[in-house]
Amino acid sequence: MTQGRFITLEGGEGAGKSTQIRALAAALRARGITVVETREPGGSEGAEAIRTLLLTGGADRWSARAEALLFAAARADHVEKTIRPALARGAWVISDRFLDSSRAYQGQGELTDADIVALHRIGSEGFLPDRTLLLNVGLSEANERTRKRDGELTDRIGGRNIEFHRGVSRAFAHMARDEPARFRIIDATGSPDAVTARLLPQLFDLLP
Amino acid sequence: MTQGRFITLEGGEGAGKSTQIRALAAALRARGITVVETREPGGSEGAEAIRTLLLTGGADRWSARAEALLFAAARADHVEKTIRPALARGAWVISDRFLDSSRAYQGQGELTDADIVALHRIGSEGFLPDRTLLLNVGLSEANERTRKRDGELTDRIGGRNIEFHRGVSRAFAHMARDEPARFRIIDATGSPDAVTARLLPQLFDLLP
Repeated sequence: MTQGRFITLEGGEGAGKSTQIRALAAALRARGITVVETREPGGSEGAEAIRTLLLTGGADRWSARAEALLFAAARADHVEKTIRPALARGAWVISDRFLDSSRAYQGQGELTDADIVALHRIGSEGFLPDRTLLLNVGLSEANERTRKRDGELTDRIGGRNIEFHRGVSRAFAHMARDEPARFRIIDATGSPDAVTARLLPQLFDLLP
Repeated sequence: MTQGRFITLEGGEGAGKSTQIRALAAALRARGITVVETREPGGSEGAEAIRTLLLTGGADRWSARAEALLFAAARADHVEKTIRPALARGAWVISDRFLDSSRAYQGQGELTDADIVALHRIGSEGFLPDRTLLLNVGLSEANERTRKRDGELTDRIGGRNIEFHRGVSRAFAHMARDEPARFRIIDATGSPDAVTARLLPQLFDLLP
């Protein structure tokens, strides 16, 4: 059996990642591909337990350092228990966020990008997606979209200021520029169907 | 106010660490020193929550990689929330296990010692004890002592074979040899009082 493909969707909050994952999964299934939809932090039993630790409690519950280690631990479990076994069965795995989110969110403050990459090497042997789709919307449109969701932005990670989210956006853009073979930058403005139509062709070269 | 001192007790299971920490703390308090007794994994609210994740579930709940990241995350929280603030208040902190246990237990399998040290640099800025007391008992005496405890050896970490514990013992010995200024190797055979009498003089140079 052919090894499956590992696809990640990245971008700030409100970029439409979860909607697009459902649409991509449906389109791939229509081509006879088995698809596992997953998300981070979480995606395996142990990682979901760590997710609960990460997303509950006050904003100062975890230092930036402890938080980065917890994300890397959750990712190690996710890779080992969910992603690698699914790929080995020949399934495609589409994840809502992965390493690049840690690099964008946790690697631009007290910790460096090199620290986050080192944690991923130690935790997950540096395992990387076959393709990463970076969904780009303007920050004002992202804000508009997230304001419409009840409460979701008030969790420990989402509740940060506009300057922080601008830094995240810049970090994603830098990573995409540094790894052009893995990344595709997608205009994620407009209707969900229009965005899906832009995303799908970016996976054609990976199809069996 | 003078900064306090950070003392760790290390050694395999059954070396008598928790008994000796109580005795050392009492002896230091008798000299007018404020002492905080703590232990790893745990020692702060967040670290205790991670401890619960680490010590419950089947032996294969966490891979070696996820486990090392969780220990480092717990340690980061312990250092930041408990140890550093106590030292800043002028208290002495005595911890039952710290980094060296991670190096001995997690750094001799799939992960290297350098990996464990890197996790500690990222998580806790490489923070080290002022003195580490390594309690040495023969493996057969340690076995005898731990057999007398109900169930404790059946947790995820303790329940391993004699060859593993021999490796742990060797790893501790190597670390002590590499950092003679920080480590003191203590003969921990004989009565608890006799062991305490050997430990105390190893802290005299740190007293105010």
